[in-house]
Amino acid sequence: MPTRAPVITLLTDFGHRDAYAGIMKGVMLGICPTARLVDLTHDVPPQAVRLGALVLRSAVPYFPPGAMHVAVVDPGVGSARDPIAVFSERGILVGPDNGLLAPAAAVLGPHTVRRLENPALFHQPVSDTFHGRDIFAPVAAHLAAGTAPASVGSELASLRRLDLPEASVGRDAIDGEVIHVDHFGNLITNIAASVLDAFPAHTLSVRIATMTRVPVARTYAVVAPGHTVAVIGSWGLLEIAVREGSAAAQLGAGAGTPVRVAGE
Amino acid sequence: MPTRAPVITLLTDFGHRDAYAGIMKGVMLGICPTARLVDLTHDVPPQAVRLGALVLRSAVPYFPPGAMHVAVVDPGVGSARDPIAVFSERGILVGPDNGLLAPAAAVLGPHTVRRLENPALFHQPVSDTFHGRDIFAPVAAHLAAGTAPASVGSELASLRRLDLPEASVGRDAIDGEVIHVDHFGNLITNIAASVLDAFPAHTLSVRIATMTRVPVARTYAVVAPGHTVAVIGSWGLLEIAVREGSAAAQLGAGAGTPVRVAGE
Amino acid sequence: MPTRAPVITLLTDFGHRDAYAGIMKGVMLGICPTARLVDLTHDVPPQAVRLGALVLRSAVPYFPPGAMHVAVVDPGVGSARDPIAVFSERGILVGPDNGLLAPAAAVLGPHTVRRLENPALFHQPVSDTFHGRDIFAPVAAHLAAGTAPASVGSELASLRRLDLPEASVGRDAIDGEVIHVDHFGNLITNIAASVLDAFPAHTLSVRIATMTRVPVARTYAVVAPGHTVAVIGSWGLLEIAVREGSAAAQLGAGAGTPVRVAGE
Repeated sequence: MPTRAPVITLLTDFGHRDAYAGIMKGVMLGICPTARLVDLTHDVPPQAVRLGALVLRSAVPYFPPGAMHVAVVDPGVGSARDPIAVFSERGILVGPDNGLLAPAAAVLGPHTVRRLENPALFHQPVSDTFHGRDIFAPVAAHLAAGTAPASVGSELASLRRLDLPEASVGRDAIDGEVIHVDHFGNLITNIAASVLDAFPAHTLSVRIATMTRVPVARTYAVVAPGHTVAVIGSWGLLEIAVREGSAAAQLGAGAGTPVRVAGE
Repeated sequence: MPTRAPVITLLTDFGHRDAYAGIMKGVMLGICPTARLVDLTHDVPPQAVRLGALVLRSAVPYFPPGAMHVAVVDPGVGSARDPIAVFSERGILVGPDNGLLAPAAAVLGPHTVRRLENPALFHQPVSDTFHGRDIFAPVAAHLAAGTAPASVGSELASLRRLDLPEASVGRDAIDGEVIHVDHFGNLITNIAASVLDAFPAHTLSVRIATMTRVPVARTYAVVAPGHTVAVIGSWGLLEIAVREGSAAAQLGAGAGTPVRVAGE
Repeated sequence: MPTRAPVITLLTDFGHRDAYAGIMKGVMLGICPTARLVDLTHDVPPQAVRLGALVLRSAVPYFPPGAMHVAVVDPGVGSARDPIAVFSERGILVGPDNGLLAPAAAVLGPHTVRRLENPALFHQPVSDTFHGRDIFAPVAAHLAAGTAPASVGSELASLRRLDLPEASVGRDAIDGEVIHVDHFGNLITNIAASVLDAFPAHTLSVRIATMTRVPVARTYAVVAPGHTVAVIGSWGLLEIAVREGSAAAQLGAGAGTPVRVAGE
């Protein structure tokens, strides 16, 4: 039994118009009344598994050890994909085995994967349309309330990976792409801080879209409002921003736009 | 005094731009510091009492016994409509007596209704524009903190009903309509699972809008992505969905669109 | 150490698409597991410090004494503006010293201001792009967990004020302007209830935009649906509303539109 109130986060593509996320919380509080529920986001675009996976990965490192993360972006609900849980020292992930959990599992470190197959832990009757309510939320709440991992079901050898675009590092340049446009219009790329740090050149610049050339800096504030800058942002990834503006709008760029980093 | 932390949900048409829902929470935590606050939705379209009532009804069955549900879609604030609370074994509803609470009260089962008329339980001074903050939130919090139902005010014989469109069951067909388009573009109808189960034909199909004919199935996943299917969805109602797409957009349908179910 | 679970609110311009607000909550729950987290809003338009300040001011009076309010609308992140905390009997504010906290500090009453400069209270490493996560959230959580105010840093003489438009009171009229359009399309003005109460005329009317003349009343419900009315709204300010409609749309008015109140 946990000694402090368990933290359970939710990440879904349910939006805010209906009560779907609230219903999941009702189910969880019925099973684990002490759970502390935190919304990561419910605005993943419908069925955008890859983006949901990236947002989940960006968030889990900031939660206390033992936090539980329930993620539901689940176009295959009612089909053959397995419902799973991923157990690690740093935290627990619960959701469909469609790639959504894989990047977060990688940042959590060593982990085991189990299939959710114990109907005693489900909300009955189990529908074929809303496993968030009927499987993922109740299993997560039971785990938060102290149910042993082995009770949820049998161990799986691995979980399904996602095809994430990888940055390629050459001798003279790093080639990557935009993987997400955030609320501010910042362009989040797949070029990690560690990749950039290992690159030999001391002064870097970034080329994006119509060959715009952008300095790499430590903070948005080195450029004047309205100007473009590239920084290692809060995702731990290179991001291209317009200070007090939208880089996506100003550069006409979005997910998939190629980004190249090179020495000056 | 409740032995576990009381759960209070909120459903409003306040949106997310202002701090109106947050202010209600501040008032409630001042009165009942242990309350567990859960948002159902704040995105009911302004003054859409009927839709708010349907969303509330869809959510209350999933909360633990004794949960309190504060609902504020209140075009008549400051006028003669009564502020009320509905008490049942399964849960408590608090809000304006304008029909908003009636469908949820029906699913909660046997209940009593009281007018909120004890100013000692209100946030003073009581405004004429924001009873969510000044009446509904503080009364709910006092009840959650252990105040007896009788303290809130005198019993009413009944609460105001809503004119909800009812499905009509004929010998050869069930005629209903779309009552809500959810975040995914799924078309939620007023045809309940129980109505469908009682219908004699074994193989059913649905006609909607421009005479589209849709199979009735158990899950979205029986059809290929982009195809239309009718299922008993998470509302316990027949819903028409496009797998990994928007039925509302694809069929040009919305609230009020007629739906007919018949044997093959 | 607080004897009841500490309340921490969040107000940001982070939107709902990313996990930025959720990440701040993860950091806070790691430091202060008992904190009760309440969202005021995350939909302040990007970098709209003045509007964020007004929304924050509208909310803080409704929270219990000792509540902590973390506000992050921070176009200058990574530049020279100070991170600060404001301490008062009524509550504590944490955020950037760019004017965002000043109106709320004024309604909280007598207060002291401290610069956040103790790196032991920060989330390390401190980025130059996300002080919400790395400075404001962890310092607020440490304070909520019982850290003494003096530990955060040295006292500042004052905090930065905002240029807020003031209503001017003449012999025959009060001249103000719209400062915010709320979710319902209500036009919130900068004319306070106290200013209106002090005005000699008994029957007032309001002129706005294209010389529309609007009665001042106690509640929206004195006019028929679709008609315009001016009331002291839930902000404690004169607001112009269309009953069951949008005043902003109907009058073509918005932030900055002049408003004049005069005797009949």
